Amino acid sequence: VAMGTGQAVAAGDPTKTQGTPPTETSGRAPDVAMARTPLVGIVSMTPLQKLHGTITPADLHFERHHAGVPAIEAANHELLIHGMVNTPKAFSVADLMRFPSVTRTCFIECSGNLITKVPDKITVQVLAGLTSQSEWTGVPLKLLLEECGLQNKAKWLLAEGRDAAQLSRSITIEKALDDALVVYAQNGEPLRPAQGYPIRLLVPGWEGNTNVKWLGRIDVSDRPFMTREETSKYTEPMKDGTIRQFSVVMDARSVITSPTYPAVVQKGWQEIRGLAWTGRGPIKEVQVSTDAGKTWQTANLQGPVLPKAHTRFTLPWKWDGQPTEIMSRAIDETGYVQPTWKQLVEARGPGFGHYHINSIMRWHVASDGSMTYINDPILAS
Amino acid sequence: VAMGTGQAVAAGDPTKTQGTPPTETSGRAPDVAMARTPLVGIVSMTPLQKLHGTITPADLHFERHHAGVPAIEAANHELLIHGMVNTPKAFSVADLMRFPSVTRTCFIECSGNLITKVPDKITVQVLAGLTSQSEWTGVPLKLLLEECGLQNKAKWLLAEGRDAAQLSRSITIEKALDDALVVYAQNGEPLRPAQGYPIRLLVPGWEGNTNVKWLGRIDVSDRPFMTREETSKYTEPMKDGTIRQFSVVMDARSVITSPTYPAVVQKGWQEIRGLAWTGRGPIKEVQVSTDAGKTWQTANLQGPVLPKAHTRFTLPWKWDGQPTEIMSRAIDETGYVQPTWKQLVEARGPGFGHYHINSIMRWHVASDGSMTYINDPILAS
Repeated sequence: VAMGTGQAVAAGDPTKTQGTPPTETSGRAPDVAMARTPLVGIVSMTPLQKLHGTITPADLHFERHHAGVPAIEAANHELLIHGMVNTPKAFSVADLMRFPSVTRTCFIECSGNLITKVPDKITVQVLAGLTSQSEWTGVPLKLLLEECGLQNKAKWLLAEGRDAAQLSRSITIEKALDDALVVYAQNGEPLRPAQGYPIRLLVPGWEGNTNVKWLGRIDVSDRPFMTREETSKYTEPMKDGTIRQFSVVMDARSVITSPTYPAVVQKGWQEIRGLAWTGRGPIKEVQVSTDAGKTWQTANLQGPVLPKAHTRFTLPWKWDGQPTEIMSRAIDETGYVQPTWKQLVEARGPGFGHYHINSIMRWHVASDGSMTYINDPILAS
Repeated sequence: VAMGTGQAVAAGDPTKTQGTPPTETSGRAPDVAMARTPLVGIVSMTPLQKLHGTITPADLHFERHHAGVPAIEAANHELLIHGMVNTPKAFSVADLMRFPSVTRTCFIECSGNLITKVPDKITVQVLAGLTSQSEWTGVPLKLLLEECGLQNKAKWLLAEGRDAAQLSRSITIEKALDDALVVYAQNGEPLRPAQGYPIRLLVPGWEGNTNVKWLGRIDVSDRPFMTREETSKYTEPMKDGTIRQFSVVMDARSVITSPTYPAVVQKGWQEIRGLAWTGRGPIKEVQVSTDAGKTWQTANLQGPVLPKAHTRFTLPWKWDGQPTEIMSRAIDETGYVQPTWKQLVEARGPGFGHYHINSIMRWHVASDGSMTYINDPILAS
């Protein structure tokens, strides 16, 4: 399924044939295949291995829904802010657009963004394609809370979506006043329905579902709301037998995007490319190993290196034709180093569940250049 | 004509209806109209008044073609570099992608980006929509020239496209070695056919047509090639009777994008928003007047402020309901101030033609809030 209007591919010399005129929107080339897979009804994944730079085209941003994409008209939508505020208010989308706006580029990653126990012929899209990046524009949530008169005892707020799941999460007032935005635009254009049209919450660096789509209501309180998505889901068993809750900040992570399966590595010089990010600020360093982890080299970071943003890293690599393993690890400002699978298990215990798995991903290169993903042992049930 | 798959608009409560599942690519909302106009066969214009932030979605990037969009398959395309090099070479697209890559965000603006003598009910899209911005990824042209062994006497190169116009421009070696890129990706994805698929030249800050699309050949020489697009076109008569040639760097400019026609201004607080850019580096300051040029206020610049890039500016404005004029002017690092129409005419003479018109654009606000564009007198024939 192609978007918009593609061009027919000519057999002959393009300099001898008049080309086609502009159309209302321009489409992709017919020999470029772009789709988000798998489509299992509730999720779609960004084709990281096919992308360059740091921006994810809006139509390729990953999706994870709890009750599908609702059909909402902007003219019929409001954001209600109530609870521990002096003056509860309902804001139309037009109201929101009159406030001072902020534009920032940052990632959104689902906290369940690693599929384990997979075939070794698998793309990075299917492994870790639940992360995407956009340039977002919206109004600081702080301004809206101030407009309603935030009360001193307020410590948390509930953000609730207008989808059929009415997905809701508790956000600390501290985060809301720091850098949360109510966004209405993505990569320049209005949000797409799949990304929360007409408005979504943006909570930079926090796990995907806290960035509530189709945002319809904010209820301010002195305590968290203990919703489904922070009690029965999106919590992690720890090795001391406790359950970790509100583990919302995404830890530093990196993925190699090229070369990865199904690429076939050629002998000689090429460039290893990937993305690194952390919810705690800017990426400080990315290291790449091309000898199965024996030695590590510092990769180039493409600037500007923005906080809480996908950062592109690159490293020239001359492959000698011998079988090897390539991998990358991210380091953030705090000195935190992206762990190996073994380190992750040691830190959190074997039954840590399905969330916040940010361990180093390893790729095997065979002597014919073919690549396969190296599965880590599955210790969790 | 909508892109991809839009959502049907429900009449009822979206929280009571299961939403739709993800699709291969996600579409725009049905109540969001996005099209590039006018479509007169050779040009399309970015809807600046409908966009936020700084990125132009790839399908809304402006187009100006000289022989339409050619149909080219990446697998059949090569870039030939010859002339004053020690070893002429032809690079496949796959070859180019093995070189070290660079990602940068910058604008491309057509040097004919101001329509004059227009009706006063006109959008900024039709007035000045021949400028767009993308995050581009490609290989530094410097690396390719070095790979071929650039000779000392080389001073210029010809960049030629594989469209039916075989559009060609002369580029100085100095610029080629500075920051020119051969790009294959735009906003993360492969270039679209309308933007030069599979490769185009990116000459940051230089007038649009020097960023040659469908780049097929680079011929290195000791002198410029005096092509059609730098002799009979894209030159400007000066007031001393000479003709200005190779006026390739885009001067500082700004446009208010909101509010502009067809917006109707509401009384009270709102935000004036726009874009500013220059081909000479970063924007240093943008000033906005809301009283017909009597006084000027310094606008906020959305960071990061990148060189040779569209920079979003904003200014809170409380409209009192009285008729007025709003306008903006950009100032670059060199101290250059975007001129008024009168200053432009004084500097270049009355017969300066149709290129590089970067004068201040003025918008009238009537007492009912309706907006109209204020045409400057047309002195050129």
